[in-house]
Amino acid sequence: MPSEVAEAAIESGLDVHLIGIAGEADKRVERFPHSWIKWGEVGRLFDILNKQRCKDIVIVGSVKRPDLAQVRFDLGAVKNLPFLLSLRTGGDNSVLGNIVKFFENKGFQVRGAHEIAPSLLTASGVVTKQSPERVDLEDIETGLEVVKSLGPFDIGQAVVVARGHVLAVEAAEGTDAMLQRCAELRQWGAKSRAERSGVLIKCPKSGQDLRIDLPAIGPRTIELAAEAGLKGVAVRAGHVLMADRAGLFEAAARHQLFLLGVDHDS
Amino acid sequence: MPSEVAEAAIESGLDVHLIGIAGEADKRVERFPHSWIKWGEVGRLFDILNKQRCKDIVIVGSVKRPDLAQVRFDLGAVKNLPFLLSLRTGGDNSVLGNIVKFFENKGFQVRGAHEIAPSLLTASGVVTKQSPERVDLEDIETGLEVVKSLGPFDIGQAVVVARGHVLAVEAAEGTDAMLQRCAELRQWGAKSRAERSGVLIKCPKSGQDLRIDLPAIGPRTIELAAEAGLKGVAVRAGHVLMADRAGLFEAAARHQLFLLGVDHDS
Repeated sequence: MPSEVAEAAIESGLDVHLIGIAGEADKRVERFPHSWIKWGEVGRLFDILNKQRCKDIVIVGSVKRPDLAQVRFDLGAVKNLPFLLSLRTGGDNSVLGNIVKFFENKGFQVRGAHEIAPSLLTASGVVTKQSPERVDLEDIETGLEVVKSLGPFDIGQAVVVARGHVLAVEAAEGTDAMLQRCAELRQWGAKSRAERSGVLIKCPKSGQDLRIDLPAIGPRTIELAAEAGLKGVAVRAGHVLMADRAGLFEAAARHQLFLLGVDHDS
Repeated sequence: MPSEVAEAAIESGLDVHLIGIAGEADKRVERFPHSWIKWGEVGRLFDILNKQRCKDIVIVGSVKRPDLAQVRFDLGAVKNLPFLLSLRTGGDNSVLGNIVKFFENKGFQVRGAHEIAPSLLTASGVVTKQSPERVDLEDIETGLEVVKSLGPFDIGQAVVVARGHVLAVEAAEGTDAMLQRCAELRQWGAKSRAERSGVLIKCPKSGQDLRIDLPAIGPRTIELAAEAGLKGVAVRAGHVLMADRAGLFEAAARHQLFLLGVDHDS
């Protein structure tokens, strides 16, 4: 993902400098202007950011929590020790939220990939060869209403609706697990398009901070939707990332699924 | 279940006559005033109902859909052929709804087990040795709100909430499958009560016809809730059946789970 975001940012005319964490980031970082840092080099991180005159930061990709016993802290890290210690506890979301606040307190703007690289997001309208039919549009409307009604509870990032029936609602289990459940429920494998029904609807939850938690779909989402006997996938246009765009479109074409970006204020 | 309902009805002073479908109902039917009928004996069914001066009917237990090629239809059945043929299609709920309408059109009242045998329902308040704590009551409140918000979509008969986080919402998969998912999500087995958190909240959906689809909990519900690391179960008082009451209370005591009947207009 980081190189996909960097390429899209460069295409839209931005200057980029990639900072990879050694042992975590991919070698592809080196295809761009870049620096490597190690865990614990917080002072060095800010030196690089200042030297490169960075004002906006995008945090992309996932890392494993480092073994703090193995980390060597530089002076900048020691100065920020209370903050670093605060990251040892809490769920992923609170850790990421604290990191965003940390950079903002130092005067940097944390941007989401959706702001810097909008071309990676699902566009508005039908973006595949297949299109939703009327019954699918009704299922999508129902799904969007379910998502909206669950907003206050911080769940419902994805739902599956088939012919007016809500088959599954995502809470803590993740979209992939929810789709696998639908496949089991329906006890049918990937069927011909004529026999399929239902749509996966995926949107950010209301109040979700897209800078640290941008919903994403990829080739595997399409594979699992096909296994669940669905006809397509609808996402909120401009708010859901397409990971491995080429692979995603290939899977959608192979399984004859539609992908629709919906303009909807949910 | 039929004999449990019959016993409870007799205890509350009602006259009962059980009509068992041969090959479907349990022999325990014979412990009460009873008749046996075969699939297809619709005329005979109404003869019995009229002879016994039945006015109220309770439909309890599950049946397999008969192989119509093997059924011998009596004259009463032939007279009602359009109705019988209508049962060949549709989901369980629409079949049961049609059966209710059929009896009502003939002048009978179809009652739910909850009306005839209220002692089988979960009473109001804490009905186990363990009690919910404040954090559990907050989870229950959240769960009831989720159920309420999902009412328009005919889902959400059960949800799991732990320390304010909604872990799972039941849609088409059933309560047992939802609890098993929670156990996997949390990747912990049955823990000591001190380490547990969360509550299963189970209620009828708004608009659910309790005469044909009464939510139920039983010993297995308790076992699965314990495996999911939950502290207890909350149900809407007077609206959720306890199947195998003795086994249910034994399981709750063994796993130190609470069971609470909530008076709440969801």
